[in-house]
Amino acid sequence: MTYDLWYWPTIPGRGEFVRLALEAAGVAYRDRAREDGADALIADMEARAGIRPFAPPYLADGDFAIAQVAHILAWLADRHDFGAGELDRDLELIMLQLTVTDIVAEVHAVHHPIAGSLYYDDQKDEARQAAAHFRDERIPKFCAYFEDALGANEGAFVLGKKWSHVDTSLFQLVEGLRYMFPQRMKSVESNYPKLIACRDAVAGLEGVAAYSTSDRRIAFNADGIFRHYPELDGA
Amino acid sequence: MTYDLWYWPTIPGRGEFVRLALEAAGVAYRDRAREDGADALIADMEARAGIRPFAPPYLADGDFAIAQVAHILAWLADRHDFGAGELDRDLELIMLQLTVTDIVAEVHAVHHPIAGSLYYDDQKDEARQAAAHFRDERIPKFCAYFEDALGANEGAFVLGKKWSHVDTSLFQLVEGLRYMFPQRMKSVESNYPKLIACRDAVAGLEGVAAYSTSDRRIAFNADGIFRHYPELDGA
Repeated sequence: MTYDLWYWPTIPGRGEFVRLALEAAGVAYRDRAREDGADALIADMEARAGIRPFAPPYLADGDFAIAQVAHILAWLADRHDFGAGELDRDLELIMLQLTVTDIVAEVHAVHHPIAGSLYYDDQKDEARQAAAHFRDERIPKFCAYFEDALGANEGAFVLGKKWSHVDTSLFQLVEGLRYMFPQRMKSVESNYPKLIACRDAVAGLEGVAAYSTSDRRIAFNADGIFRHYPELDGA
Repeated sequence: MTYDLWYWPTIPGRGEFVRLALEAAGVAYRDRAREDGADALIADMEARAGIRPFAPPYLADGDFAIAQVAHILAWLADRHDFGAGELDRDLELIMLQLTVTDIVAEVHAVHHPIAGSLYYDDQKDEARQAAAHFRDERIPKFCAYFEDALGANEGAFVLGKKWSHVDTSLFQLVEGLRYMFPQRMKSVESNYPKLIACRDAVAGLEGVAAYSTSDRRIAFNADGIFRHYPELDGA
């Protein structure tokens, strides 16, 4: 089966966490809105009734559609063996993945503190204040948390030697934070050696390395979740 | 087994979504920080190492601890039969529950748009702007989404006749929105008859009815996720 992934076609955004795991695992998928355009995504969303995705990304197979990044990844991990394969450990992975979801939501709120429907320029002053708190309080808190999790097992990944969906998400988190807050990340990264080693190990996975140099990997840009506005950064 | 629930003892907050499902199902639990105080919660959090909860609420049994509301509920639902008991339907329930998680995070961000670490009074002007957008854009979007989901099956609950963890969470969501935005909810509730019927049906569940009049149910207050600040409401 080839999965249909539906997500906005011009940003890495939340969809990238799903793409990365699929690419790392070598699972076939079609990135539907990149093939058919954002209008096709909107039409697909609108054609679904009842219990349906609230927002992209989602994976679909006819009437079946599963949304919410952490949920998609937990489901895929079971089917394609990039979880732990043992209940208690898989529960831990999902807990960590949901915490990635939390920081990703906070990252978006940094540049859109008042409303997602307003332009950045209309909430720039508030974003500057939010960014200062995020840099000082939230980056250290989340990074230290993931650093500790990576200390639980011997090896570069959360599970030790075997990569899981949490590792590909931590890779994208580090990449995103580096893009959005280059000065701050430069200052603090050395506090989180395991997190950086995990990022490097994921970059070295065959599937991820091939993906990273392909045109399937969308560069970070000023429309996504992680956005580089120099005024929001600081050492 | 009696579960240990750890959550802040003086607010309904995120812990209430877990409490409600436990109470509806008649599952035994100890609300540990209400017995032993917030310091005991902090001490328990700090004593955990490696892969551990990022924040309360969590359920614990010795070294085992599971955090993240949607994750706790999906896990409990499997063990105590308040899910669907069928994979595709359970995946839908988890997707809906994670969307409740999303709106709950947005609700908190309404009164804390700049930073969770600042007082409300220090971000009151920004909160007023955020609240206007939340009332106009987000309440209708989320409520319409859950209304559609409730139309998928015949009966008051998402699954039809059988209540699930999504229903108890929708109950708490409606209760919280009514407390935080009484004027707005009064204006818009008639647009979401299935959501209100679901709320009423949950209120009528034996376990929930008994819980609601007990001293275990903590009233909404100005320290929780749902807070009533009159200046944030509007018809």
